[in-house]
Amino acid sequence: MAIRSIIRIVAMLIGLFSLTMLPPVFIAYIYQDGGGNDFLAAFFVTLIIGFFFWIPNRRHKSELKAREGFLIVVLFWATLGSVGAIPFLMSSSVDMNLATAFFESFSGLTTTGATTIAELNDLPKSILFYRQMLQWFGGMGIIVLAVAVLPMLGIGGMQLYRAETPGPVKDSKMTPRIAETAKALWYVYLCLTVACMLAFWLAGMSLFDALGHSFSTVSIGGFSTYDASMGHFDSEIINIITVVFLIISGINYALHFTAFSAKKFSLEVYRRDPEVRAFIFIQVLLTGICFLVLIDNDVYSSIETTFSHAMFQAVSIATTAGFTTTSFSDWPLFLPVLLIFASFIGGCAGSTGGGLKVIRVLLLNLQGQRELKRLVHPKAVYKIKLGNKALPDRVVEAVWGFFSTYALVFIVCMLALLMTGMDELSAFSSVVAMLNNLGPGLGEVALHFNDVSDASKWVMIIAMLFGRLEVFTLLVLFTPVFWKN
Amino acid sequence: MAIRSIIRIVAMLIGLFSLTMLPPVFIAYIYQDGGGNDFLAAFFVTLIIGFFFWIPNRRHKSELKAREGFLIVVLFWATLGSVGAIPFLMSSSVDMNLATAFFESFSGLTTTGATTIAELNDLPKSILFYRQMLQWFGGMGIIVLAVAVLPMLGIGGMQLYRAETPGPVKDSKMTPRIAETAKALWYVYLCLTVACMLAFWLAGMSLFDALGHSFSTVSIGGFSTYDASMGHFDSEIINIITVVFLIISGINYALHFTAFSAKKFSLEVYRRDPEVRAFIFIQVLLTGICFLVLIDNDVYSSIETTFSHAMFQAVSIATTAGFTTTSFSDWPLFLPVLLIFASFIGGCAGSTGGGLKVIRVLLLNLQGQRELKRLVHPKAVYKIKLGNKALPDRVVEAVWGFFSTYALVFIVCMLALLMTGMDELSAFSSVVAMLNNLGPGLGEVALHFNDVSDASKWVMIIAMLFGRLEVFTLLVLFTPVFWKN
Ligand SMILES: [K+]
Ligand SMILES: [K+]
Repeated sequence: MAIRSIIRIVAMLIGLFSLTMLPPVFIAYIYQDGGGNDFLAAFFVTLIIGFFFWIPNRRHKSELKAREGFLIVVLFWATLGSVGAIPFLMSSSVDMNLATAFFESFSGLTTTGATTIAELNDLPKSILFYRQMLQWFGGMGIIVLAVAVLPMLGIGGMQLYRAETPGPVKDSKMTPRIAETAKALWYVYLCLTVACMLAFWLAGMSLFDALGHSFSTVSIGGFSTYDASMGHFDSEIINIITVVFLIISGINYALHFTAFSAKKFSLEVYRRDPEVRAFIFIQVLLTGICFLVLIDNDVYSSIETTFSHAMFQAVSIATTAGFTTTSFSDWPLFLPVLLIFASFIGGCAGSTGGGLKVIRVLLLNLQGQRELKRLVHPKAVYKIKLGNKALPDRVVEAVWGFFSTYALVFIVCMLALLMTGMDELSAFSSVVAMLNNLGPGLGEVALHFNDVSDASKWVMIIAMLFGRLEVFTLLVLFTPVFWKN
Repeated sequence: MAIRSIIRIVAMLIGLFSLTMLPPVFIAYIYQDGGGNDFLAAFFVTLIIGFFFWIPNRRHKSELKAREGFLIVVLFWATLGSVGAIPFLMSSSVDMNLATAFFESFSGLTTTGATTIAELNDLPKSILFYRQMLQWFGGMGIIVLAVAVLPMLGIGGMQLYRAETPGPVKDSKMTPRIAETAKALWYVYLCLTVACMLAFWLAGMSLFDALGHSFSTVSIGGFSTYDASMGHFDSEIINIITVVFLIISGINYALHFTAFSAKKFSLEVYRRDPEVRAFIFIQVLLTGICFLVLIDNDVYSSIETTFSHAMFQAVSIATTAGFTTTSFSDWPLFLPVLLIFASFIGGCAGSTGGGLKVIRVLLLNLQGQRELKRLVHPKAVYKIKLGNKALPDRVVEAVWGFFSTYALVFIVCMLALLMTGMDELSAFSSVVAMLNNLGPGLGEVALHFNDVSDASKWVMIIAMLFGRLEVFTLLVLFTPVFWKN
């Protein structure tokens, strides 16, 4: 294991990350919110931390192996989550202890979007902007992780996508390949962000709100600059724009890249993809169920309002964004629990969405059907096909294994939260919200996580990381075989 | 599909089952509790129903095929659960509607042990005896199902046990093989029941209580004849006897048979079995955790009482018996939820316990470890070994598939219960209690299911059946491929 080489890379990343604290300085000076000096100080502290780790290791450059990828990915997220907390700790306008600052930072970077801040409306714009930006950068990391890194590491069946990723495949030389893929994906990501921002702006948001909400929409993060979340704008057009961009961002970015780089842009590439079809079907189905149950229970006065809330909440929760337009946790109990279970499905692989990912649920479903067929005809041979490609057994086993491990991590995290003193509903919905990188929970934690104990926050931070790193990336570091030789 | 042949068999079973209503008649006359005539009437009604189905189909005798096994097993349980409700419907001392009577009957036969009766103490002894006996007969059905039928049907990896089952293996001729295995297993089951009854009696129970509680102990059912369950006796010796017999009954009955039929009885056969070792380890671990947390929270006044309650509740819930000596649902919240999650593991395969079964959890664990190793060394070949036997891939996939389907059925049942108006904790714990055939839940349903709506009861009955029939037996009937030619 080339540890010092890895530290050098992480140190460089910290240095680079310190730059993210400069735009808030700029925002602070424009809006004169008084937060500029705090961010400038945070910038220097972060830069110095980066230098501190870089100097002794700066000459250690070795080609990285696939196995080291696990460690680098975990360190990237853990380190950035930690230094990302510095501005919260140093700010004079929010009063956060270590657990709370880490929670807010990890929640942003992992695009979970659960907040510890009960009163957003009164915060300086620089802090609000920084939170939105954390999500946006987190989203950048996720698409590269999901499109370029996980297929190479072969996590939870994602080797399925190995051949499809843009760029040349060289298992032992990760760096050039990832850099090339990353650039292509970020280009798409940037275009979508700009489009989303313009749409919000034209729909009536201020430029500041449009930019901030485009950040947390394309990253499927769910942070808002208002306590009422998207409900603040009370606009059906803004709701529709959000839903459209959440659905776009919930689709595999490798597909977007293919569609963008084709000579003539065409929807055909999406229409052919079984995962996209399933994803859209799920969103439509959930919207329909929410709409019918809400109508049946006479929750809203008009049909249009009902449909708008139903569609917004269904897509927002099912894609794991976690925005709200209404207090959906007070809907007839069946609906919030249905949506919270739907967040286990989440977005497509290679998107910024969380959860198990649509493709895995699709495969679990096909695999389950095969098991049933096998019971009836024990001697027949059934191949699982996705589109017209037969699935290798290795992928089948990896997907089953992913699901079971996800369930196990869920149970352990929930028991840990109960031990820290939470009640069942809050503990249950918190783990769902963290592990699926969804954001809001039910019960005590339906709006914010301010009243949660520090111990609970640390457990939740770990749960967010487990979710974002697709469980196995983190878990594999705890096996002896990983560290041997 | 030889439907009429199957109906003939089920009809004969109903006729046979009517005999179970005669012992309560006898009990009623001994104790003069006034319930005798009701049971006699119920006996005749059941007998007539049996005849009614038998007469037109009595000449249809055809050799049954493995595939028809699924239908027969489901029909056995569904039919006996239904006619088992007749005494509750006809009794003048309990006032039950259809849903409640069915719930009580299915709960008995599936050895779930959830009751709808809030006041047991005042009931006629004949009814109390009948409830206990339902569990005992249910237990008889389960061990035959689990040891002889499921391995042949290959459900959820249970083909693993195909070679080990006593008796000759003929895949296409089920009947003689099952009959032979059943006799051997029932002999063991009867011996254990007698031993358990004698132990309870010597420990101070009345003969009636000793018999009744031995029925619900060896069947891991959990019904009691008192509202306070085993807590009524307030005896540490009785607690220990219960724990011992629950652990014995939680072990594969094929192992008991091997141990019994050996020239010299020896514990070696148990000690060699990886599933038994894991099962015992789980019980010890849970007892230890409960004991330490209870001590830490000063719940009971003495160390002995603490240990007695800790051991009893840990084993009672983890083996899915569901007896209580104390209101463990009021323990520090972490413990009841831990135990309720432990009931997902349940007993060993081929035991009367419920849940996923220890062997499957053991295999899931080994399979998960293999997935982790494969991530680090993608090109290495890892075989999963149980003892010194390598596991076929087919079994591996079947176990993953079993777990995923179990989880899916869990979610669907929980959503269905929420739709019938239950709160989250009650719905959640009810599904755990039904699907794992555990019995008591938490919250509203910690003691009994009397206050639950009829719609909820029907959902729970289906959940009990799913659990008892290892999900796939029931699910496969809903696939088109099962009914095709
Ligand atoms: K989110
Ligand atoms: K039970």
